[in-house]
Amino acid sequence: SWFHRSSVLQSTCPPHSGFFGPVEDVMLSSGTFRDKVAFITGGGTGLGRAMTSTLSQLGAVCVIASRKLEVLQQTADEISSQTGNKVYVVQCDVRNPEDVSHCVDKMESLTGLPDVIINNAAGNFVCPSERLSPNGWKTITDIVLNGTAFVTLELGKRLIQRQRGASFLAITTIYAESGSGFVVPSASAKAGVEALYKSLAAEWGRYGHRFNIIQPGPIKTKGAFSRLDPTGMFEKSMIGRIPTGRLGKPAEVANLAAYMSSDYATWMSGAVIRLDGGEYVSMAGEFNELRRVTPEQWKTMEDMIRNTKGS
Amino acid sequence: SWFHRSSVLQSTCPPHSGFFGPVEDVMLSSGTFRDKVAFITGGGTGLGRAMTSTLSQLGAVCVIASRKLEVLQQTADEISSQTGNKVYVVQCDVRNPEDVSHCVDKMESLTGLPDVIINNAAGNFVCPSERLSPNGWKTITDIVLNGTAFVTLELGKRLIQRQRGASFLAITTIYAESGSGFVVPSASAKAGVEALYKSLAAEWGRYGHRFNIIQPGPIKTKGAFSRLDPTGMFEKSMIGRIPTGRLGKPAEVANLAAYMSSDYATWMSGAVIRLDGGEYVSMAGEFNELRRVTPEQWKTMEDMIRNTKGS
Amino acid sequence: SWFHRSSVLQSTCPPHSGFFGPVEDVMLSSGTFRDKVAFITGGGTGLGRAMTSTLSQLGAVCVIASRKLEVLQQTADEISSQTGNKVYVVQCDVRNPEDVSHCVDKMESLTGLPDVIINNAAGNFVCPSERLSPNGWKTITDIVLNGTAFVTLELGKRLIQRQRGASFLAITTIYAESGSGFVVPSASAKAGVEALYKSLAAEWGRYGHRFNIIQPGPIKTKGAFSRLDPTGMFEKSMIGRIPTGRLGKPAEVANLAAYMSSDYATWMSGAVIRLDGGEYVSMAGEFNELRRVTPEQWKTMEDMIRNTKGS
Amino acid sequence: SWFHRSSVLQSTCPPHSGFFGPVEDVMLSSGTFRDKVAFITGGGTGLGRAMTSTLSQLGAVCVIASRKLEVLQQTADEISSQTGNKVYVVQCDVRNPEDVSHCVDKMESLTGLPDVIINNAAGNFVCPSERLSPNGWKTITDIVLNGTAFVTLELGKRLIQRQRGASFLAITTIYAESGSGFVVPSASAKAGVEALYKSLAAEWGRYGHRFNIIQPGPIKTKGAFSRLDPTGMFEKSMIGRIPTGRLGKPAEVANLAAYMSSDYATWMSGAVIRLDGGEYVSMAGEFNELRRVTPEQWKTMEDMIRNTKGS
Ligand SMILES: NC(=O)c1ccc[n+]([C@@H]2O[C@H](COP(=O)([O-])OP(=O)(O)OC[C@H]3O[C@@H](n4cnc5c(N)ncnc54)[C@H](OP(=O)(O)O)[C@@H]3O)[C@@H](O)[C@H]2O)c1
Ligand SMILES: NC(=O)c1ccc[n+]([C@@H]2O[C@H](COP(=O)([O-])OP(=O)(O)OC[C@H]3O[C@@H](n4cnc5c(N)ncnc54)[C@H](OP(=O)(O)O)[C@@H]3O)[C@@H](O)[C@H]2O)c1
Ligand SMILES: NC(=O)c1ccc[n+]([C@@H]2O[C@H](COP(=O)([O-])OP(=O)(O)OC[C@H]3O[C@@H](n4cnc5c(N)ncnc54)[C@H](OP(=O)(O)O)[C@@H]3O)[C@@H](O)[C@H]2O)c1
Ligand SMILES: NC(=O)c1ccc[n+]([C@@H]2O[C@H](COP(=O)([O-])OP(=O)(O)OC[C@H]3O[C@@H](n4cnc5c(N)ncnc54)[C@H](OP(=O)(O)O)[C@@H]3O)[C@@H](O)[C@H]2O)c1
Repeated sequence: SWFHRSSVLQSTCPPHSGFFGPVEDVMLSSGTFRDKVAFITGGGTGLGRAMTSTLSQLGAVCVIASRKLEVLQQTADEISSQTGNKVYVVQCDVRNPEDVSHCVDKMESLTGLPDVIINNAAGNFVCPSERLSPNGWKTITDIVLNGTAFVTLELGKRLIQRQRGASFLAITTIYAESGSGFVVPSASAKAGVEALYKSLAAEWGRYGHRFNIIQPGPIKTKGAFSRLDPTGMFEKSMIGRIPTGRLGKPAEVANLAAYMSSDYATWMSGAVIRLDGGEYVSMAGEFNELRRVTPEQWKTMEDMIRNTKGS
Repeated sequence: SWFHRSSVLQSTCPPHSGFFGPVEDVMLSSGTFRDKVAFITGGGTGLGRAMTSTLSQLGAVCVIASRKLEVLQQTADEISSQTGNKVYVVQCDVRNPEDVSHCVDKMESLTGLPDVIINNAAGNFVCPSERLSPNGWKTITDIVLNGTAFVTLELGKRLIQRQRGASFLAITTIYAESGSGFVVPSASAKAGVEALYKSLAAEWGRYGHRFNIIQPGPIKTKGAFSRLDPTGMFEKSMIGRIPTGRLGKPAEVANLAAYMSSDYATWMSGAVIRLDGGEYVSMAGEFNELRRVTPEQWKTMEDMIRNTKGS
Repeated sequence: SWFHRSSVLQSTCPPHSGFFGPVEDVMLSSGTFRDKVAFITGGGTGLGRAMTSTLSQLGAVCVIASRKLEVLQQTADEISSQTGNKVYVVQCDVRNPEDVSHCVDKMESLTGLPDVIINNAAGNFVCPSERLSPNGWKTITDIVLNGTAFVTLELGKRLIQRQRGASFLAITTIYAESGSGFVVPSASAKAGVEALYKSLAAEWGRYGHRFNIIQPGPIKTKGAFSRLDPTGMFEKSMIGRIPTGRLGKPAEVANLAAYMSSDYATWMSGAVIRLDGGEYVSMAGEFNELRRVTPEQWKTMEDMIRNTKGS
Repeated sequence: SWFHRSSVLQSTCPPHSGFFGPVEDVMLSSGTFRDKVAFITGGGTGLGRAMTSTLSQLGAVCVIASRKLEVLQQTADEISSQTGNKVYVVQCDVRNPEDVSHCVDKMESLTGLPDVIINNAAGNFVCPSERLSPNGWKTITDIVLNGTAFVTLELGKRLIQRQRGASFLAITTIYAESGSGFVVPSASAKAGVEALYKSLAAEWGRYGHRFNIIQPGPIKTKGAFSRLDPTGMFEKSMIGRIPTGRLGKPAEVANLAAYMSSDYATWMSGAVIRLDGGEYVSMAGEFNELRRVTPEQWKTMEDMIRNTKGS
């Protein structure tokens, strides 16, 4: 059946994906982030790890924070040994404002306040909404929305006090605007994060702060896929509707994030950038399903349309 | 095959459509448009005809305009005989600014300038974009975008000169914002119409004009379906993804249009109202396809997610 | 100065507001909600009160819920004595899932589960974001986002269990999509509510539920204006940029809400309706400030443009 | 008066613009576009010239096309002499499909079909809509919407025939989505271009094509400012509401465009990227005007809010 079979087929990409092969090298020139401090939540795994690795390679001193200290430390060691630049770790549960405050205290003593902030930590799982308890709801929205707000407000206030500028970036998702069933707390919280960042882009420019957003489409990280597509059955149909015919790579998000966080983008604020291989427009457009129509069928249909009379 | 079989199944609605049975009576109280003149392009057929009928029933004197005089005249006679209110017809190809100007001259002599304007005339057909000629492109965009602009600018200028207020409504589509393959000239032109109306909502309020938009989802009119789904193969999959489980009815658009054009909505301007049974959000949300997961499969998936360790 | 002077000028509407005089009668025909139960959070004051009054007049049995029992009771008595239909009150703090659950228990025993649900309760105040504490943030987001989620999930689950359909409506705001400085927790939480409703529109159609949203622009209620424009200095500039030249009236929202909650709108789901006199498009459009250019200045500018050579 | 005075003040940037100083170096590493052919409409002036210069520096062979051959030739010579890479010129009025077809014929013989296509040619001028003639409307929409469509369809078809992939980029504007008064034909046509590109992103991925959009905010080019702000009176108020406190630089758009057109972005399709210093979110957010409130006034307001009782 569809449920069991699909996992077998999961990694078959259509031939046109060949036009869109990923480039995973670091894009910016080394030294772009020299003398800069970058703070990345959830920097120990997945996309956060990729962004940390890229910024570190580009010369930044990085500070990564999340709940699992061991995971953070291992990532830090690995990246640092590759890039030769320091990667500090701070244990922090972003849901807890005091944790966040202590985390920033610690960062201040290690590196000073950051120039680049990336709010990437998140939680998510698929679930029919009628099976969601108030606690299930809060588990996700507390991390994603409150966590991002606590980190952003804490850092913002301290930066303002010191008259320091900074670039803030949040990682949301392509369903933040449209909403999506079966991931409802995540959709709601990510939409909240987007409004938070657009609001502060307008309000805190006067303090030297920029706020931008990346909406990734599906990228195979363990964190995301184990909770969003545990059986693997969903992957094939995602690939089928992604115009570029493949999932994304963490390095592709990392290159975009590095650009947006760099001084090449000082005039970018309040921007929301979708990086999804075209999946969103492909899903949303009402007639895109007609890609299934064959050339022969098109000929038949054209004749039928031509012979239509009247309105 | 899918291509041929689907037409057979086309009208099967899922059981939950029973919760969403259409109400096709006129909603507003009779007399709401007494002493008002309404001008509806494409008023001879489909949605335009339904809106004309509703406004006429509500007391408006209507003027309908399009290319086919006979079709217009027959509609006018039928509606007028039912409602007892005058329905005038004017032949007009909206692509031609002179035609539009003559049409408004004629309307002025028949009824005076309108209080309610509905830009509903349009053309569309499905076609892979690589098969589109410049002429194919222009056929659609000239009617939809230029036609709407010519009608709106001509009426707007005259109303401004006479210091007359008015309500303008444009009928676009749910894919105006997202775009859609296979109906590309229509998507582009309708997006243009939306920008035109939002722009004028801001600019011409000072002259007493309001501008609003309805984006209908799929509604079975001969004009739309014969050129968008000539084989009928598309209908079933549309119904399958519409949360309310059915296509819309012309009378449902007409009731919304009447409200938006009435004095109950004098504070509505620059609004864009989607009326589509939920189709748009259903298509656009990345995980909505999980509606195919059965309760048993959910149990399996929940276990798998629960047993996930680490990020 | 601007700060003190403005309150004096506050209620001057420009002449063109005369074209857009509000109609505050109930729009739908009486009996539209006969045998229906409506549940309105925050139904004791402001817009919630207006919606309750309208639904009650249209035949609904209403249940209103919020924290202040006396306020609720007084409103209930007043409305009920005018309409002759029962208005029940339930004390409930929507931030608390247990409160919400008890509230629904009580409603079930009083009236049974509702056919119409309006999530209208909210909190908000203006504040520079650098002065916001984590508690300030949570005060607003807990009411607006978590409160709406708890009410919606609790009612949704019970309705699903009983196989009952329902119409859900949420009241958000025009800055939910764009974000806005100085009301950042509200902007974030309202954006979250919109994603919640668009998500459930897609997911819970199969259970007979519709989900829609109204985004009101500025409407003078005590609750909103005392916390958003305490000095009154803001009102004039709002009116100056609203194309229809005036603030909205609670009855205008109530008429729209009644339509959206009625069976005339069974094909509306996932819709987001802005009702703001055109304020949003007027603010957002980059060149709308040119409304300040006089006709004479336009002549000068046209000459300058005409004499521009080259690109 | 405001009209005459403003030009004097025009270039004063607020102090916080110091945080957002532009970096105008080429961002990508040289050789990124080696062996690639880039086609840029309107490449002789303004933003088009800047993008051509950047792509040429990065190794691309460029072909630029517009109406004024001399302007093109001078730009081509200047850029080519700086970068050492060929820049070809082709005279072409994009409004005319035959011109476009000849232009592509010529390009094919000079360089072969392009790998990178940038639709940048446009026209615009400020004008109250009641002063717009049908010709004024068509002048702009023919260049912007039809011109972009003709170029895109012609190149797309030929690329498809040869089974060649390509990156398409369109330059639109921040008011494409919101609309804007006083530039209505431009707003409508640019909205149309966005729908065209989002539609083809979904449809033509299968042929190896990507489609993306940049929405620039105000950037001082002669072409734009002479027709949009001929008196200079508008510039100051624009700067005042741009959170980053300054206008953009052509090189900043060029760096973003180069990234989006490069293989680092092969997974980007259907994206719409706003690059506007935050102007859009700043205008659109209802309460952003409160930036004018001083710290002392905030204290007063906080007291008033705190003392508010009831809803
Ligand atoms: N991969 C995709 O397809 C995809 C698509 C769209 C958006 N995204 C977004 O991309 C971001 C990264 O996702 P990913 O795919 O890389 O998944 P991931 O590896 O699971 O990353 C999530 C990170 O968040 C951290 N985190 C979770 N709860 C936390 C808390 N309470 N406090 C602090 N940190 C916490 C986790 O670390 P600890 O467990 O150590 O706390 C983990 O490092 C997320 O924002 C996600 O929503 C991903
Ligand atoms: N039905 C749907 O599912 C659906 C969905 C989304 C949007 N819409 C929109 O709803 C509106 C009505 O569509 P419909 O379904 O009712 O289809 P329809 O019956 O084909 O209506 C189109 C009308 O436009 C008129 N028209 C076409 N070209 C014209 C021209 N050059 N000048 C003047 N009038 C012209 C036609 O009359 P003549 O042939 O006499 O000129 C016809 O009455 C359209 O704007 C359509 O885009 C419909
Ligand atoms: N007026 C406007 O200009 C405007 C504009 C945009 C949007 N809105 C929205 O319209 C809705 C109504 O606003 P309004 O202007 O009518 O203001 P309002 O009179 O202050 O209404 C807010 C209502 O929410 C209730 N509420 C607050 N906290 C609650 C809680 N924890 N639990 C339960 N109920 C709670 C309040 O009742 P208790 O104090 O008794 O709890 C009150 O009845 C809100 O969603 C608001 O965001 C208003
Ligand atoms: N500068 C800004 O602030 C700003 C803001 C938002 C968007 N934009 C967009 O950025 C793009 C470039 O604008 P710009 O500021 O660089 O202005 P510009 O210098 O005036 O560029 C417009 C270019 O379009 C070409 N063009 C005009 N009509 C044409 C036609 N019929 N056929 C072929 N080419 C034609 C012009 O060349 P010829 O005269 O030789 O034909 C010119 O090179 C435009 O799409 C504009 O809408 C600019």
